[in-house]
Amino acid sequence: MDTKTINIGIIGLGTIGTGVVKILQENQKIIQNRLGAKIKISRIADLDLTTDRGISLNPSILTTQAIEIVNDSDISIVVELIGGEEPAATYILKAIKQGKNIVTANKSLLSTRGPEIYQASYDHKVDIGFEGSVCGGIPVIRAIKDGLSANRISLIYGILNGTANYILTKMSDEGISFNKALIEAKKLGYAEADPALDVNGKDTTHKLSILLSLIYRKQFRPDDIYTEGITHIEPVDIEFARELGYRIKLLAIFKEEDGEIEARVHPTLIPAESLLAHVNGVYNAAFIAGDAVGSTMFYGQGAGMMPAGSAVVSDIISISRNILNGSNGQNIPLFTKNYSTIKLKNKNQTKCKYYLRFSAQDRPGVLSQISGILGKNNISISSVIQRGRQVKGAVPIFMLTHEAVEKDMDKALQEIDALLVTLDGTTVVRIEDQFNNLA
Amino acid sequence: MDTKTINIGIIGLGTIGTGVVKILQENQKIIQNRLGAKIKISRIADLDLTTDRGISLNPSILTTQAIEIVNDSDISIVVELIGGEEPAATYILKAIKQGKNIVTANKSLLSTRGPEIYQASYDHKVDIGFEGSVCGGIPVIRAIKDGLSANRISLIYGILNGTANYILTKMSDEGISFNKALIEAKKLGYAEADPALDVNGKDTTHKLSILLSLIYRKQFRPDDIYTEGITHIEPVDIEFARELGYRIKLLAIFKEEDGEIEARVHPTLIPAESLLAHVNGVYNAAFIAGDAVGSTMFYGQGAGMMPAGSAVVSDIISISRNILNGSNGQNIPLFTKNYSTIKLKNKNQTKCKYYLRFSAQDRPGVLSQISGILGKNNISISSVIQRGRQVKGAVPIFMLTHEAVEKDMDKALQEIDALLVTLDGTTVVRIEDQFNNLA
Repeated sequence: MDTKTINIGIIGLGTIGTGVVKILQENQKIIQNRLGAKIKISRIADLDLTTDRGISLNPSILTTQAIEIVNDSDISIVVELIGGEEPAATYILKAIKQGKNIVTANKSLLSTRGPEIYQASYDHKVDIGFEGSVCGGIPVIRAIKDGLSANRISLIYGILNGTANYILTKMSDEGISFNKALIEAKKLGYAEADPALDVNGKDTTHKLSILLSLIYRKQFRPDDIYTEGITHIEPVDIEFARELGYRIKLLAIFKEEDGEIEARVHPTLIPAESLLAHVNGVYNAAFIAGDAVGSTMFYGQGAGMMPAGSAVVSDIISISRNILNGSNGQNIPLFTKNYSTIKLKNKNQTKCKYYLRFSAQDRPGVLSQISGILGKNNISISSVIQRGRQVKGAVPIFMLTHEAVEKDMDKALQEIDALLVTLDGTTVVRIEDQFNNLA
Repeated sequence: MDTKTINIGIIGLGTIGTGVVKILQENQKIIQNRLGAKIKISRIADLDLTTDRGISLNPSILTTQAIEIVNDSDISIVVELIGGEEPAATYILKAIKQGKNIVTANKSLLSTRGPEIYQASYDHKVDIGFEGSVCGGIPVIRAIKDGLSANRISLIYGILNGTANYILTKMSDEGISFNKALIEAKKLGYAEADPALDVNGKDTTHKLSILLSLIYRKQFRPDDIYTEGITHIEPVDIEFARELGYRIKLLAIFKEEDGEIEARVHPTLIPAESLLAHVNGVYNAAFIAGDAVGSTMFYGQGAGMMPAGSAVVSDIISISRNILNGSNGQNIPLFTKNYSTIKLKNKNQTKCKYYLRFSAQDRPGVLSQISGILGKNNISISSVIQRGRQVKGAVPIFMLTHEAVEKDMDKALQEIDALLVTLDGTTVVRIEDQFNNLA
């Protein structure tokens, strides 16, 4: 019996693309056995065909013209790995129109133009796989689509950016500043030359937006999700959090409560004994709670050549299976009209506990002024520590609050930061400590 | 447009069966939206139709005759939840012959008669789903089949039995004996009236056997996998392990090295700072390493009405999708001839580090005799602690060894236990501390 062959084309031979080629070459036999067919890389496009990537390729399959892959009638799966919005969107949409199945790891594209791409894939009866877009090698997209498909998913806490997690871990382990930790991350190749999206939280927000789109089958635009990065976190915050039994992580947070969705991305104090607090370095994890399954957590490497390549190749294999059994493009549309009217909660209305660090003059009455303003704004303090030592002429005052409404907190902080006795702005870190069932 | 309907029949309305009904009822709308079709429970068989299970069912769908479900031509998916080998195997095989797809959570059946069942499902072109057979609600089967399909999987450390993990956690947290912790587990419904398979390790071995069968697509019989339970672990072992920076967990261990497989189930000392060591209570977790993805971990509840129900319903949904798109029964056979000739390593040849607790008379020269025998058998000691206090006239001596060969250890222990100065038998717990990349 002849072995069937699935021809694929890869657009973009950067880090992930190289990983995909390596995996398909090294695990060729094992994958062929699992699939019952061969996966053949029939064409690869990249603008740079000269850099040595440590892989051996037949030069005849290489091209600088991505459009050749889009137009190649032998290719059934186009793997887009160039990232960014354009020209990726154009290639993907053109390939879909030609009946090609798509695999991509392009989180910024999917979070912003997902609806258009999903609709096109439905209209043209092709599959689209994007496991690599969230949590790299960890099969979180599949968990939501398949493994937990029986559940109403009501909560996610995600550590979805390895660079930010590496920096926070390094700051925590060594007591160093954000800037020093960032330099270290760059040295080790964990941070790009421009790590802006990693440390300002936006990459995490793109990923959260994709997870939400899977859960609710409608788009939640990244711009509508409250996002805060980690650049303002100082070693003293990490140290104080630790003393109180917390770790600081950049979390993607999703909760459904009372028919509304809370979705936000910000540094967060979480209990030191929680599993998530033990997710360190470049590792990612998604803590997902469903009404039937209870608490689950998925852990692994969220980025890097081979982990991200693992996710992309798993999509290539799944879509190949569908092509072989004739079921590709047969799924119901990812986004359906009127499926869900649920909306994001107004940020002003969200409630949580807060960690606050004030920088104040070392004078009598300061604490009374600050706590007076908090009280007036319905914010109740659960603990306060004022340390004697001075930092640049100021005394830090640390506070934890009980649950408070965001709007009240905003107002209180405006008043406090306007006081003559406070210096700099107040550092605010939200707290999540309701890890139900999390042993 | 008429909504399509998939008719299912459930055999066994025990804990999991009740969970499946609850989920299908409570999340009916959400599941219908995800699937684009209705799932209808058209028949349920159980010998006991009188017990109130807290669910409301149309009495006309209930029967005491499971065979009616097997023979019902309207039913496309038979959900077998009675457990045990017979009559479950007979019902499943008969249903397959009638072209019915199967969902089961029956780990003892699959681990022993898997090949026959998988072959039948292939011959008759039906799907078989068994996500619920390992790790309950955690989608570990799918992780191996789909999410990590690009990888050569080379290592698994699994906490696969919630009852055993609850008991060890309780012993660890409260310093109580195995028997006391077991009584507690029974009180809370975490242990069956007969918890033998949970505490003697065999349930864990059944699950490991299923995971191995997925990885290698050949059967590894539970009887061929070295299995040891947790009944001999004493509080003093847990306490001493903790002092040395370890926790004791009942682990399913799989490693591929040098073309051979190590597969064993036993209590194990693992580093206290590892993620797995933080998996407590009735929770399960599978730590899985692949050549591309690196280290991953999947965490959640491994048993119970709703978590196990979540897994079973996810299979019902997946198979329903396949039925709707015409791809059910189109997969390549799970077991293929000549796919893998890999074999289990002879247990005598396995190597690991050991924790040993000797019970000896408090006399001069005892330590020298014990360490002499170990040395003679090529076992090198990495640390030793002898405590002054006597327990029943004996002094406990604790040792950790460097890596040693199992055969040598067996021989040394025979000699040591035959000494006049040693009392009781030596308590042996293996150590696994090579958690690569596990932050």
